[in-house]
Amino acid sequence: MNYRMIGKIISRILGLEVLFMLPGLFFCLYDGDYNGARAFGISFAIILAVSGVLYLLCRHARRGFYAREGMVTTGLTWLSMSMLGCLPFYISGQIPRYIDCLFEMVSGFTTTGSSILTDVEALSRGMLYWRSFSHWVGGMGVLVFLMAVVPLSGQNEGYTLHILRAESPGPSVGKLVPRMKQTASILYLIYIALTVLDFICLLIAGMPAFDAMCITFGTAGTGGFGVLNSSMADYPAAAQTVTTVFMFLFGTNFSCYYLLLIRHFRDVFHDEELHLYLTIIFVSITLITINITSIYGVREALHQAAFQVATIMSTSGFATADFDQWPVFSKTILLILMISGACAGSTGGGMKMSRLLLAGKGLLRNLNVNLHPNEVRRIRFNKAPVDEQAIRNLYGYIIAYGGIVVFSLLILSLDGFSIETNLSATLATFNNIGPGLASVGPTCNYSAYSDLSKIVMIFNMLAGRLEIYPILMLFLPTTWKRA
Amino acid sequence: MNYRMIGKIISRILGLEVLFMLPGLFFCLYDGDYNGARAFGISFAIILAVSGVLYLLCRHARRGFYAREGMVTTGLTWLSMSMLGCLPFYISGQIPRYIDCLFEMVSGFTTTGSSILTDVEALSRGMLYWRSFSHWVGGMGVLVFLMAVVPLSGQNEGYTLHILRAESPGPSVGKLVPRMKQTASILYLIYIALTVLDFICLLIAGMPAFDAMCITFGTAGTGGFGVLNSSMADYPAAAQTVTTVFMFLFGTNFSCYYLLLIRHFRDVFHDEELHLYLTIIFVSITLITINITSIYGVREALHQAAFQVATIMSTSGFATADFDQWPVFSKTILLILMISGACAGSTGGGMKMSRLLLAGKGLLRNLNVNLHPNEVRRIRFNKAPVDEQAIRNLYGYIIAYGGIVVFSLLILSLDGFSIETNLSATLATFNNIGPGLASVGPTCNYSAYSDLSKIVMIFNMLAGRLEIYPILMLFLPTTWKRA
Repeated sequence: MNYRMIGKIISRILGLEVLFMLPGLFFCLYDGDYNGARAFGISFAIILAVSGVLYLLCRHARRGFYAREGMVTTGLTWLSMSMLGCLPFYISGQIPRYIDCLFEMVSGFTTTGSSILTDVEALSRGMLYWRSFSHWVGGMGVLVFLMAVVPLSGQNEGYTLHILRAESPGPSVGKLVPRMKQTASILYLIYIALTVLDFICLLIAGMPAFDAMCITFGTAGTGGFGVLNSSMADYPAAAQTVTTVFMFLFGTNFSCYYLLLIRHFRDVFHDEELHLYLTIIFVSITLITINITSIYGVREALHQAAFQVATIMSTSGFATADFDQWPVFSKTILLILMISGACAGSTGGGMKMSRLLLAGKGLLRNLNVNLHPNEVRRIRFNKAPVDEQAIRNLYGYIIAYGGIVVFSLLILSLDGFSIETNLSATLATFNNIGPGLASVGPTCNYSAYSDLSKIVMIFNMLAGRLEIYPILMLFLPTTWKRA
Repeated sequence: MNYRMIGKIISRILGLEVLFMLPGLFFCLYDGDYNGARAFGISFAIILAVSGVLYLLCRHARRGFYAREGMVTTGLTWLSMSMLGCLPFYISGQIPRYIDCLFEMVSGFTTTGSSILTDVEALSRGMLYWRSFSHWVGGMGVLVFLMAVVPLSGQNEGYTLHILRAESPGPSVGKLVPRMKQTASILYLIYIALTVLDFICLLIAGMPAFDAMCITFGTAGTGGFGVLNSSMADYPAAAQTVTTVFMFLFGTNFSCYYLLLIRHFRDVFHDEELHLYLTIIFVSITLITINITSIYGVREALHQAAFQVATIMSTSGFATADFDQWPVFSKTILLILMISGACAGSTGGGMKMSRLLLAGKGLLRNLNVNLHPNEVRRIRFNKAPVDEQAIRNLYGYIIAYGGIVVFSLLILSLDGFSIETNLSATLATFNNIGPGLASVGPTCNYSAYSDLSKIVMIFNMLAGRLEIYPILMLFLPTTWKRA
């Protein structure tokens, strides 16, 4: 294992993190929240010290960097970023317990949006900025950002590829252009452009500037942290609609936008994942609208159905209505959408459309092989044959998913909440959604769980965002053995 | 597709079914239930007529019989056996609606034990016999029985193998002895011996003879139909303990008993599946006992915990206590055991220990391949390398499982019961357990669900017992296309 290279990368990421936190300090100073400013200052000192020590220890790194290093780097980066990034909350005392600070920070970076806060509005603007901005950073991935802006000298393509594979959501990472570094840059440029567009639209829809900024970060990263206790419910309907549209847009595979930019319209038009995504959106909104029309009337029912489908499927987790009060049929659809998630290569979480497609195709092939043992066919996705290792990774993902859900359910059940609460809390954290049902529904929060349960949910959120392997491997002895 | 051979086999199975039902007629005559006797008589006439017509149409069958025919035969056999076997309930009017009769019959054959009856004791003894005996028939499989006793003239080994593979529970069917027909006979001899032993023990424990017979059928097939409204709760504690022990015994892989008989003790001692089975039993009983000691006291807590773990894990579904009232931690353990099930090659349902083991090994191998791409290892089970197609079938099984659960949840949610009720109803029917939680808990039944939901649960039970493929394939166009 190339420990020094891993340390060197983490050292740079921590430097970057301080840069990202800087506006939080400015907000504190501007608002006269000197306690918050002090907390940011001390945090910067600690983070920079850790970063500096790591740099000194690891500056002479040798070259070799493989899949294993890519996974471990990603897992450790996200862990250290969260453990240090939550310091301002803790030091300022605005969130009194460290485990809660860590939960909130991990929830931010992993774009989950589950909160332990009963009163969000009690936080100062500096803290609110950093809490929401962590969504934006985590959405596209901080290592991908590093790849895009800071080329590590003398590193080969493989290095960038292994990092991108480990941090990016979806069963396989497609290169948009031959060089991975350029791919990372293009992804971030599209991301920034959409973010700015969302912000402007929210301003036009009549949202205050600071709120619009934070909600935009939450929408772009499909995170779901808001700045009001009512989440999105008290904003104008126009702002809710803008957010609905952008949640769907940020849940779409970004390579589609690139293909549109280079005028490959036909490829986008025939994209299988996009077809499934749009079909599920359409069917779900229609069914829920019919189901809740008696509560709201058609117009409002459509508005609410679209927003909730967008917020759950993109795994954002903003709330405009307490869907826990909806009929069981609608709740069941939302529960299933919690698992399905959005598209691969988007900022959304969950299982992803392309995994569902591949799983379905794998099952059909398997049924066929059992019927006609002599016909063996390769699985194709968007007409291209799929690598068999990607299929095996998919199966591994599903099995690990099941194991994590079972483990999490067991630990959470010790706290005495209902099975529905625990199941939805597990799914909502693992799939990076935010709110669940019953005692962790849209109007509630996660503060009542025990510390042990919170640690398990922190693990769920990280495993969900990084798609299990980079986190699971940290616990595997074979990861650490000499090659 | 060799339709004639399929028809010929189904014709014989229906003849066999009448033979199995015959004691029901005798019980009716003995008890003076002439309406019931009439119902059995008319049913016999209908079933024998169908069987006769099938025989006339299909008597000149050609030879070829492959995996595809094996699956289709199994699927269609179970469907027709259930649709005709439930006629006595319907004709006698003891269960008024046909869909309920079919539900009850499928629940019997698939050894599920879910009931739509509010008052079991209202049924006559003839009906109760047939309802319970269907568990015994379904437990080891009716086609396996046919293989064991009625050799079809001029058929090769492959034929028997394909049938056995499709009907027997577990990811792979091991041949105990070189010839499949003998394997089937040995399995049934062990089954009969254990059944007789269970019956004698129950008599000694003080249970009335008719009850002991029916409970034995339910235990042997791990079905769970009782003859009292209180299921097992009103029987002496000794009878409950006997049943606990035999539920565990019938949940064990029958090849272990064969190995014991031929004195291969070492193989049994080192059996990986048995290790996992015993470990999970021990851990679950211990944890639940600790969790419910405050309700019952240690001694009774241990008794109840052992019975419930046995009844859920072996997927029998007898009830002695309303575990729906237990703490959430215990309920969660039971919910997880609903999925895990017992051993392959037993009469129990669920996912099976060996599938869990293979899934875990598959995941570990996959993590390893990602870490060290150049090391490729074969998966081993009890030291023997596992066929890669068996692994792929396992993955297919898990994906289909997920799909069926999602579909079932959606349909069931239309009836307005809670998510907990629907989820446990889905798991309890698919895994052939019987009772679920909340509104389908041990003291409740499935009668309140709509007809559509009952059809879905009938599908669940059949798909669960036959391990998905033979049932799913009936709906696949490629199954029916010419080779």
